[in-house]
Amino acid sequence: MRILITGFAGFVSRHFFNLISEQEEDSIVIGLDRNEPAFDINQYKNIKCETVKTDLKDKNSFLNILQTFSPEYILHLASASSVFYSWQHPSEVFLNNNAIFLALLDAVKEYGKNIRILSTGTADVYGISAIKNSPIHETASLHPENPYAVSKTSQEMIAKIYADNFGLDIIQTRSFTHFGAYQKENFVLAKFAKELTLIKKNKQAPVLTIGNIDLIRDLTDVRDVTNAYNYLFKKGKASEIYNVCSEKGRTLRNALEAMQKELSINVELKVDEKLLRKVDIQSIIGSNKKIKNDTAWQPEISFEQSITDLLDYWDKKV
Amino acid sequence: MRILITGFAGFVSRHFFNLISEQEEDSIVIGLDRNEPAFDINQYKNIKCETVKTDLKDKNSFLNILQTFSPEYILHLASASSVFYSWQHPSEVFLNNNAIFLALLDAVKEYGKNIRILSTGTADVYGISAIKNSPIHETASLHPENPYAVSKTSQEMIAKIYADNFGLDIIQTRSFTHFGAYQKENFVLAKFAKELTLIKKNKQAPVLTIGNIDLIRDLTDVRDVTNAYNYLFKKGKASEIYNVCSEKGRTLRNALEAMQKELSINVELKVDEKLLRKVDIQSIIGSNKKIKNDTAWQPEISFEQSITDLLDYWDKKV
Repeated sequence: MRILITGFAGFVSRHFFNLISEQEEDSIVIGLDRNEPAFDINQYKNIKCETVKTDLKDKNSFLNILQTFSPEYILHLASASSVFYSWQHPSEVFLNNNAIFLALLDAVKEYGKNIRILSTGTADVYGISAIKNSPIHETASLHPENPYAVSKTSQEMIAKIYADNFGLDIIQTRSFTHFGAYQKENFVLAKFAKELTLIKKNKQAPVLTIGNIDLIRDLTDVRDVTNAYNYLFKKGKASEIYNVCSEKGRTLRNALEAMQKELSINVELKVDEKLLRKVDIQSIIGSNKKIKNDTAWQPEISFEQSITDLLDYWDKKV
Repeated sequence: MRILITGFAGFVSRHFFNLISEQEEDSIVIGLDRNEPAFDINQYKNIKCETVKTDLKDKNSFLNILQTFSPEYILHLASASSVFYSWQHPSEVFLNNNAIFLALLDAVKEYGKNIRILSTGTADVYGISAIKNSPIHETASLHPENPYAVSKTSQEMIAKIYADNFGLDIIQTRSFTHFGAYQKENFVLAKFAKELTLIKKNKQAPVLTIGNIDLIRDLTDVRDVTNAYNYLFKKGKASEIYNVCSEKGRTLRNALEAMQKELSINVELKVDEKLLRKVDIQSIIGSNKKIKNDTAWQPEISFEQSITDLLDYWDKKV
């Protein structure tokens, strides 16, 4: 496949790159980011890849790349995606995420040839709807409760305008909490895995600072998520929105306990007020019926395997 | 009242200015716009006014003005508000409208003192919901169907975040189609009134180009709308969203016929494809029960009076 990936330096992109290097013959990837990727793209044999450091808010840069590279697919991952950061910088996150998306769509519109775009979004758009509807379906009403979620709800509305009226081939996701190797430790499960590994190695005192870990989340392995993205490229229906999730709820506490058990350690938990969010939705569990029906995708990696692999990653890293 | 008005050069602002010069003792107004107002602010006796030409997307300019001027109220009108224009420039309209709003809210947040903000929005956020629910209430689901409506739906979500989490005192409106003197002729009733007046004076051939004039709209006199804004400042409930409308549906054809009757002329109608919108909602009629209940506002100007006054305005102008 010929694919352009925005937000190429991020952890989801890296897993998607792994996936297509294994599953797709002779792929050609162009990776866009304002940062350099943290991995060596030349170590992959079965794939041709070029990275471009560019201002993603500039339509003309996008257009130039489309004309040079003629992608069949665009995986749009570029986004400020930390809810915590969005509370501190709501305007920046809102304008950044939407300016990038609009520049991309305007470039594709001007380019004129058909490209299938996968616009990745978040379960956070549901907000309190997810309390009343569990597992939540794509038809539920949206109640974005944090600035990041507002930016992504806007992105959904923009995508609909460009798909319905300008004929762009856009599929959207609402991806639920996903985790795995390479994720930065400002995301909660990565933080837990890293610090527990440090504690296991006696490199940190056996105390873990936590926020509210009794929240129930639909925790999905990032490799299942990137696999879903590939299924959506191939079999998703144009203009549709899909939940990407495991349909299983689990507390963060449960995940933390699984990690401690795997490492055979026991740590003291200490609540840090700074880690508590202004607004927290007690439970977010998604229905994955629609994506299963339309694409035959299903999650394949057990939660236990995900935890083992995540801890292996941190064991090698710290 | 001490009030800051954004989008001061626009026609709604001018009517609001007229209103407070008549109804509010010793008001002080600071008017922000990137354009100069088209009227002489010094002709009003009962009001002190200063205008500032500024980049409304710059938080620091706003903050500086707040610190200098200490307003009690902000009437936020600044917005690219033409649906037609938004189809041609969706990115510009989306980013412009939201960047201005975010700069304003960030400035108020940093300023810290309480200011009541009226954020004016549009009935267009309802989209097809308005077909199924008539008259439509504020609790209906939102289906923005054009880029302008998407930008204003985003503005609503942003307002909610800043009100709920940062404690800003924001009231929002969903204002339905409003019309009156000073409105530019890229809005349909102004175009009709201007051209019919030209025809009446034999300055134009008796042919009027039209779009789809069988749409049913809730047509409200702009003076009733600005009066509603003043009621909302005084009696509206914080964090609430209010329809501002007459609760009466009327086709644009009916309005056109009323104008022709008033002028005693008969013109040939000619459909211009360019004036047809990509998406049109057949009927949009609002419930004004909530604003009536909460503020005791009600529309006072009859439709016939509105038409007479609008034609008088154009008679003097062309």
